[in-house]
Amino acid sequence: MIHVNLGPRSYDIAVNDGGDIGTLLKQWLAGRRAYIFADANVANQADALFRTLTNAGFTCRSSTIPSGESSKSLAGAATLYDRLCDAAADRQTALIAVGGGVVGDLVGFVAATYNRGLPWVMVPTTLLAMVDSSVGGKVGINLPHGKNLVGAFHQPAGVWIDTAMLATLPIEEYRCGLAEVVKYGVILDVEFFGWLETNAAAVIQRDDAAVAHIVTRCCQLKVQIVEKDEREESGLRIVLNYGHTFAHAFESVGGFTMRHGEAVAAGMVCASRLAELLGMASSDVTKRQVELLQRFGLPVQPPHSARIREWLEAMKRDKKALGGKLRFVLPKRIGDVAAVDDVQESDASNVLAQK
Amino acid sequence: MIHVNLGPRSYDIAVNDGGDIGTLLKQWLAGRRAYIFADANVANQADALFRTLTNAGFTCRSSTIPSGESSKSLAGAATLYDRLCDAAADRQTALIAVGGGVVGDLVGFVAATYNRGLPWVMVPTTLLAMVDSSVGGKVGINLPHGKNLVGAFHQPAGVWIDTAMLATLPIEEYRCGLAEVVKYGVILDVEFFGWLETNAAAVIQRDDAAVAHIVTRCCQLKVQIVEKDEREESGLRIVLNYGHTFAHAFESVGGFTMRHGEAVAAGMVCASRLAELLGMASSDVTKRQVELLQRFGLPVQPPHSARIREWLEAMKRDKKALGGKLRFVLPKRIGDVAAVDDVQESDASNVLAQK
Repeated sequence: MIHVNLGPRSYDIAVNDGGDIGTLLKQWLAGRRAYIFADANVANQADALFRTLTNAGFTCRSSTIPSGESSKSLAGAATLYDRLCDAAADRQTALIAVGGGVVGDLVGFVAATYNRGLPWVMVPTTLLAMVDSSVGGKVGINLPHGKNLVGAFHQPAGVWIDTAMLATLPIEEYRCGLAEVVKYGVILDVEFFGWLETNAAAVIQRDDAAVAHIVTRCCQLKVQIVEKDEREESGLRIVLNYGHTFAHAFESVGGFTMRHGEAVAAGMVCASRLAELLGMASSDVTKRQVELLQRFGLPVQPPHSARIREWLEAMKRDKKALGGKLRFVLPKRIGDVAAVDDVQESDASNVLAQK
Repeated sequence: MIHVNLGPRSYDIAVNDGGDIGTLLKQWLAGRRAYIFADANVANQADALFRTLTNAGFTCRSSTIPSGESSKSLAGAATLYDRLCDAAADRQTALIAVGGGVVGDLVGFVAATYNRGLPWVMVPTTLLAMVDSSVGGKVGINLPHGKNLVGAFHQPAGVWIDTAMLATLPIEEYRCGLAEVVKYGVILDVEFFGWLETNAAAVIQRDDAAVAHIVTRCCQLKVQIVEKDEREESGLRIVLNYGHTFAHAFESVGGFTMRHGEAVAAGMVCASRLAELLGMASSDVTKRQVELLQRFGLPVQPPHSARIREWLEAMKRDKKALGGKLRFVLPKRIGDVAAVDDVQESDASNVLAQK
């Protein structure tokens, strides 16, 4: 059990708890009503959860959310609001999000805003959601202009992770999670990065112990950051955004057709090359990332159809941008990064043009 | 200046400050970019504000919001999000809401959610907004199923009130604000209720000193409650909902065609009669409210087309309801109310049928 200490908003992340989720939810939640929203791809797991929670004494409702990024929209939120109205959900009704990042972000946003806030529990079923969205309470939806432009900070009542669920995850989805896993090594933990290099084969084969280790370690690393900067106010939390300014631009300009993890992998390499160009990091920093990402089958350069002008415009609109200036998190060495304000457009452009 | 003490979310309400709003906003806001969203009815006041803020050194954008409750919707929020995207608004951009409750609630909700939170300032131009929404940070939008079903708690950076703006407010709008003013007397301050009875003529004639007094006193009273229960967690804040469970039902079943203040006036009388029926209050408590509300030209019974069954269903869906049970704030005497759970439907129905 990993504890996330955020004062009155503290919660636990149960990783391979072994016990019964129903028992745990009775500790985490004051009420005994639950509405399960599950990605259509994991409807079976949601059905099993429905039975478990019903047996534990919860009054449950359940419905599915179409898979894919397009559900994470105002229209998607409106659909969930309607279902909650129809179910006469009140502030004692907990929302249970079963799925990946899209479902977690969408259901979390609905939980943050319906009736000005409902409790919610996350049951991540993808590696990306386990290592990324299960810590920190960032929830949100996309606008046509860009990803996550509308959202909130809304901590869950708890997170239930069973890494055995990853055995059946499509390989591309698993790879995408590994991009974020590599990110934690680069930004915070050179030793963990080294462990990934040594154990890359076991990781990509989804060896039970290896998967459990990376999920636990990434959650621990993210907890350290989030506890010190819950709402991205002190600037500390921005390190988690490594690779993401580029990634969000690739995704939004491409109309969200690129997988997030693939965009992050390419984005980290761009950021690392930018650090080299600015004299912040040695070429070895980029080289180690490129090699590890390639072993995980992840892209290490921007999408083929170069749209540099549009990417730059998108980055200026990024939430992390200030006054239209470009701002990036860049590595100094593996395990240590820094936020850099006011990067020249020409430098960012150079890096984007590099093959 | 009324101070609202909410720790890191504290702010000031300037009532008839006399000084320059530009100077004040430079104290309240860290950034120097502002986006003014104004009710189309007060576009002139917004233009004047635009010039003042520009002179004070702010970079401003401005646009109007169509008057009326229908703007306070997901579609209305989507329109504002688009404008903020087009303006490349960032976390240093403050939103300035100029208008009544609809504009305040909508702009506040957009400020709470765009980029996971922007600073915002409220410039209320109606009596209702001055005495109600300027304290407490409750923001939100309506769903087809009911009012304020989606929202957040998002405290403003400050509130600027100039009661001279009320001189040109349509009389029906002014009356609506008086319903909330009467409410504060009933729930918290028998002396203020007595002052309203004594000074009803000056109040309805909008005498300068009388208007300044009621706005200041109502803000002070609401501050006392909100400081002790910012997020409606301790149950204390629920007293502010006096008359509102009935009112929300009248409004939602009527498709939001009834004015909020009129619905609240009728709702308070219903709640007071319910208190009588339950033996909690004497008939004099209702009588004094009916007489004062009538002097202010406000309705004292439910809408003519009685739709009792639908009103009851709407009340069971109210945010304040728990597990589908009816819950009301009821008066014990003028100046003192209590929340009552689990009211019998037949009792609520009886009161709704009363003429």
